[in-house]
Amino acid sequence: MERSVVLTGQHYLAEKRAVVDRLLDEYLPSEKSYPNILHEAIRYSVLAGGKRIRPILALTAYEVFGGENDDIINPAACSLELVHTYSLIHDDLPCMDDDDLRRGIPTLHKKYNEAVAVLAGDALHDLAFELIARSGSAEVVSELAQAIGTFGMLGGQMADIEAEGKENSIEQIEFIHKRKTGALIRACVRIGAILAGADKPTLNSISLYGEKIGLAFQIIDDILDIEGDEKKLGKIVGSDCKNDKATYPGTAGLEQARQVGNQLIDEAIEIAEQFNIKKNHFVDIARFIGQRDS
Amino acid sequence: MERSVVLTGQHYLAEKRAVVDRLLDEYLPSEKSYPNILHEAIRYSVLAGGKRIRPILALTAYEVFGGENDDIINPAACSLELVHTYSLIHDDLPCMDDDDLRRGIPTLHKKYNEAVAVLAGDALHDLAFELIARSGSAEVVSELAQAIGTFGMLGGQMADIEAEGKENSIEQIEFIHKRKTGALIRACVRIGAILAGADKPTLNSISLYGEKIGLAFQIIDDILDIEGDEKKLGKIVGSDCKNDKATYPGTAGLEQARQVGNQLIDEAIEIAEQFNIKKNHFVDIARFIGQRDS
Repeated sequence: MERSVVLTGQHYLAEKRAVVDRLLDEYLPSEKSYPNILHEAIRYSVLAGGKRIRPILALTAYEVFGGENDDIINPAACSLELVHTYSLIHDDLPCMDDDDLRRGIPTLHKKYNEAVAVLAGDALHDLAFELIARSGSAEVVSELAQAIGTFGMLGGQMADIEAEGKENSIEQIEFIHKRKTGALIRACVRIGAILAGADKPTLNSISLYGEKIGLAFQIIDDILDIEGDEKKLGKIVGSDCKNDKATYPGTAGLEQARQVGNQLIDEAIEIAEQFNIKKNHFVDIARFIGQRDS
Repeated sequence: MERSVVLTGQHYLAEKRAVVDRLLDEYLPSEKSYPNILHEAIRYSVLAGGKRIRPILALTAYEVFGGENDDIINPAACSLELVHTYSLIHDDLPCMDDDDLRRGIPTLHKKYNEAVAVLAGDALHDLAFELIARSGSAEVVSELAQAIGTFGMLGGQMADIEAEGKENSIEQIEFIHKRKTGALIRACVRIGAILAGADKPTLNSISLYGEKIGLAFQIIDDILDIEGDEKKLGKIVGSDCKNDKATYPGTAGLEQARQVGNQLIDEAIEIAEQFNIKKNHFVDIARFIGQRDS
């Protein structure tokens, strides 16, 4: 299936992004309340922008599968962006990737100091669970915790560190990518679907869709770190190479990485098209991920 | 009320401690599973010993108020020890208190490195929410998240850092202690009581009991950092003084700190004695906290 050159569904994504930005601003504690510096730091990191793809995935899954209660899905969806931001803050620390720039502004430990960055990451990690618990569902709390624990995201981050400077097979790269990035993205669609009361076969299909776009997302991230535009990305390109990171193009070459990324997006669209629903925004999101340049 | 010279309820506490140790060992991922180093680090920190006072408080509240399902309370109780350990690991980091010894063994960043310590702390923080979600109650997830967030424990840690090297009033010290240590201890008894289905007046009383022993616990911690036995404590004494920390005896003097600690314990016992229950282990626990030397 040929993908359109024009970005489809851009209007939908822009609209949802605005909703998420407004909600995040509402849910985050005011910088006027104590501990002010920590609340300032949290707001600095979360409100610096971003594609908001994780909450949008949860909102989309919830709506597509018939959910109708904003009070349930809104905090749960936003919790996913907080988790993502916490992981970036801790990942950027000097003892981890030691990055200076993120979303076009200094990383948190550069703007403040390491202690504030550690605590602000912890605070977002914690606030994410406070928000998702507002859904009233212990099941999705568990879903999130498992996706970002040692058998998910944190395991991927550890594997990522251990793979630095080594020869890595495609299987090893996929092992890392599926955990580091894929597990949370898969959880986003599952959490939306579970809260909407989706049945088991639907949950299985949407999980597979999440896995495909999750892996594609990270492969495209690796590609953008080589040939992306620093201004659009808001971070310095070439950091993977500098840190001798395990990347898909680093092992398979740019051309094959592009092919695998495209194929995963096509497969995700194929799964999404099987859902018998009116406005299939899952197709739009998969296309957006396949064509993103930031 | 005169406190007995002999530690009362020691048998109860030792028995519960053994139960908690066994459960923690069971709940923590095996070091044979990937990421092995992270699982090793987690087990190293959690299984190094400790009084297990937080899970014991939750178990006690649950039992005392009529809870009968181990599958609900056991993971919830253990989650509280994981949260405590995560906070110690991050607190010990070089950018925070920079401590080398904890529970008689090297701190995690000394034993491994800083990256492992950051990720192991994050992993325990996360696993705590996975465990407490097994209770099936989103309400207690929310209770925990709020107790350890920026308006609770994390706010206390930030305040603690900001107070270093300054003249602090008793009010400021209490502000820090209530958040840094008190909020989680209060949440322990509340979580046990909520899961047991305690009514509102009971919840209010047990919260007050938790606040009293929580503040007493930290005041006694400050005192032990001055006149405690390093061997019993398993950490180097005098670190508060070295780091110019805001402490109760530092501001009020040792004698007044002792008096306030004793008074809080007496008040907690008075509240506990109002509960119309057979075996009042809340009294034992308050006495234990008042008389502890490690």
